[in-house]
Amino acid sequence: MQNFVLHLPTKIIFGRDTIKNIGPETAAFGGRILLVYGSGSIKQNGIYDRVTVSLAQAGLTVIEHPGVKSNPVLSHVREGIRLAKEHKVEAVVAVGGGSVIDSAKAICAGAEVNHDVWLFFKGKKGVKSKLPLTCVLTLAAAGSEMNGGMVITNEETSQKFGTGNQLLKPEVSILDPTATFTVPPSYTAYGAVDAIAHLLEFYFTTSDPATPVQDRFMEGLTINIMESCRKVLTRPDDYQARADLMWCATLALNGLTAAGLGMVGFPMHMIEHSLSALYDVPHGAGLSVVMPAWMKWRAAEAPAKFAQLARRVFAVEEKDQYLAALEGIERLKSWFRESGSPVSLRDLDIPESAIPALADNSMALAAIWRLKEYDSAVVSSILSNCR
Amino acid sequence: MQNFVLHLPTKIIFGRDTIKNIGPETAAFGGRILLVYGSGSIKQNGIYDRVTVSLAQAGLTVIEHPGVKSNPVLSHVREGIRLAKEHKVEAVVAVGGGSVIDSAKAICAGAEVNHDVWLFFKGKKGVKSKLPLTCVLTLAAAGSEMNGGMVITNEETSQKFGTGNQLLKPEVSILDPTATFTVPPSYTAYGAVDAIAHLLEFYFTTSDPATPVQDRFMEGLTINIMESCRKVLTRPDDYQARADLMWCATLALNGLTAAGLGMVGFPMHMIEHSLSALYDVPHGAGLSVVMPAWMKWRAAEAPAKFAQLARRVFAVEEKDQYLAALEGIERLKSWFRESGSPVSLRDLDIPESAIPALADNSMALAAIWRLKEYDSAVVSSILSNCR
Repeated sequence: MQNFVLHLPTKIIFGRDTIKNIGPETAAFGGRILLVYGSGSIKQNGIYDRVTVSLAQAGLTVIEHPGVKSNPVLSHVREGIRLAKEHKVEAVVAVGGGSVIDSAKAICAGAEVNHDVWLFFKGKKGVKSKLPLTCVLTLAAAGSEMNGGMVITNEETSQKFGTGNQLLKPEVSILDPTATFTVPPSYTAYGAVDAIAHLLEFYFTTSDPATPVQDRFMEGLTINIMESCRKVLTRPDDYQARADLMWCATLALNGLTAAGLGMVGFPMHMIEHSLSALYDVPHGAGLSVVMPAWMKWRAAEAPAKFAQLARRVFAVEEKDQYLAALEGIERLKSWFRESGSPVSLRDLDIPESAIPALADNSMALAAIWRLKEYDSAVVSSILSNCR
Repeated sequence: MQNFVLHLPTKIIFGRDTIKNIGPETAAFGGRILLVYGSGSIKQNGIYDRVTVSLAQAGLTVIEHPGVKSNPVLSHVREGIRLAKEHKVEAVVAVGGGSVIDSAKAICAGAEVNHDVWLFFKGKKGVKSKLPLTCVLTLAAAGSEMNGGMVITNEETSQKFGTGNQLLKPEVSILDPTATFTVPPSYTAYGAVDAIAHLLEFYFTTSDPATPVQDRFMEGLTINIMESCRKVLTRPDDYQARADLMWCATLALNGLTAAGLGMVGFPMHMIEHSLSALYDVPHGAGLSVVMPAWMKWRAAEAPAKFAQLARRVFAVEEKDQYLAALEGIERLKSWFRESGSPVSLRDLDIPESAIPALADNSMALAAIWRLKEYDSAVVSSILSNCR
């Protein structure tokens, strides 16, 4: 285990009938708020009403900023920052999944500076302060509700970049599993894939070989994500399974799994971001295509950790380390397929001829994230095995 | 999973050479501090020097309050409160294990009120504010460094009571595994037993049958505590194993394992507290005596969860649920024995004739902790199986 600092200041309010807390929890930070949400599904399932009633009862003045897209875009963030400044809001309320929360974080940070918010993503500026942020989560996936990360796509440059800062952690996040009952099967599965990707990125890229405490934690979460997602796909209103899936997704990327791992990388996310940036595929759908190919590529060189996963998570009994590793990867891929998440570029309608452009696109992020062992040829080779 | 609120505001600074941060981290809260520590072992292993140099370099005025005992006593806490008030300290620094940190918490709370601090433990008063608290941990055991609990013994009444409050969570805790290199084998084992007891109390007393996420987390921690403790007992300066053990003990009782479990009980701790109160046995040593007997008693009625533990943690293959449960309990007991922690009242030199008095003593805590199913006869029957 390597040295770490862990600080998890986000207050989590989890469970049934908890959305009514958003008003009083937000009022602690000010009276004028910006309400950020997505395409309007929260108006159909009643969550919008529950949130706005609570905000009104707490006496808050609400400026609305709807319309966050599934791969959230920079122009919309900039517009949110303009609104926040114009109305002098004192806090931001995000109601949605990772895309909405990430947009809200970028607005919270951008509202405090005079330079363009994209400079944070290019690594040219660091976040020094931000508006307070409270969240109502409606999708089990990104983990953004308890961490300091944010991912935004710049439509002008076709760049999907992520960055993070301790300060960006939300002050309060409300997680009501019933808010995810109406998430369609496809996005439920993509969310589960995303959470598993967060776990396995850390699991396989830690620079320290001995992290047995974190390993077992991540293995347990992976098992639970697969089991709960399977139940939810059979019965979308299975409260306990929705609760398990939601909490697992939060725990998968709130800093706990990474604490002690030292430097980790996000190579699978790096490659997937190119798929999202150039073909606007849902993040989780892109990940389930990229992951098995990346894992096979990596396991060929260092099979031990992949064999451990295979044995502990998939109960693979194969003695040979490399064969066990491959068997584990196949079982994960089968679970992706069973869950309705794509497993090949063809499933995403992306032609093989697109591979060089995708690989080139990923190089910008490889540089920013310092993933030095990934050149365009390596990424092309991994992408050509996405089948 | 049941509803929960989780807030983990304690900043954890973990790893080698981190004790030097105690000065600057504490200075954020004020210039006059009370330094609480134990019997002086920190003067032998150099930790005292490292702490006081850092505090001095940060320009802090230090009032010392040494002498916390292994089962910390109320009179010493009251003296600390008197000192804190007399010198108008602005923060408390605890350097030690759970006993020292618990004493410091009680001082932090008691310094803010005019009534006797014992009223908090009797449940007659609630904590409403406290002095800021920073810690340097020197023992992997209690988990007090990241939670809001505290346990103190009232020597006048022979009562060892525990209480807790969200506000009592330390502001900052520094966990340097090298600080535990000089902990003797016995106390290393007792600490590991204590951490396992925290996990298994929750694991077996949750009122909700379905907590698969928390279950796997607790099972993983239990495995890691046993494995790392075994390594440390062979080689006391095995940094990685000390680090694993230290971090597991913190995670075992920082609120994460309990989040979503609903009401849990501490029956094993309740019974053990009588052993400590009447015979001053080390807490972990008492727990390894009580646990197998309590588990057998409980497994007879509800073997399912015990069988799950046996299969997942001890790889027991027995098909019959009750027999599997018993086999798991035996393996845990064997691990206690192997680690040098006692497994019977005889090991503690407590005569069987003491059982009625021990059982009677535990009834006060049973009432405060609302463990209604435990009367004196039940506790006597469990104690008579501690062999």
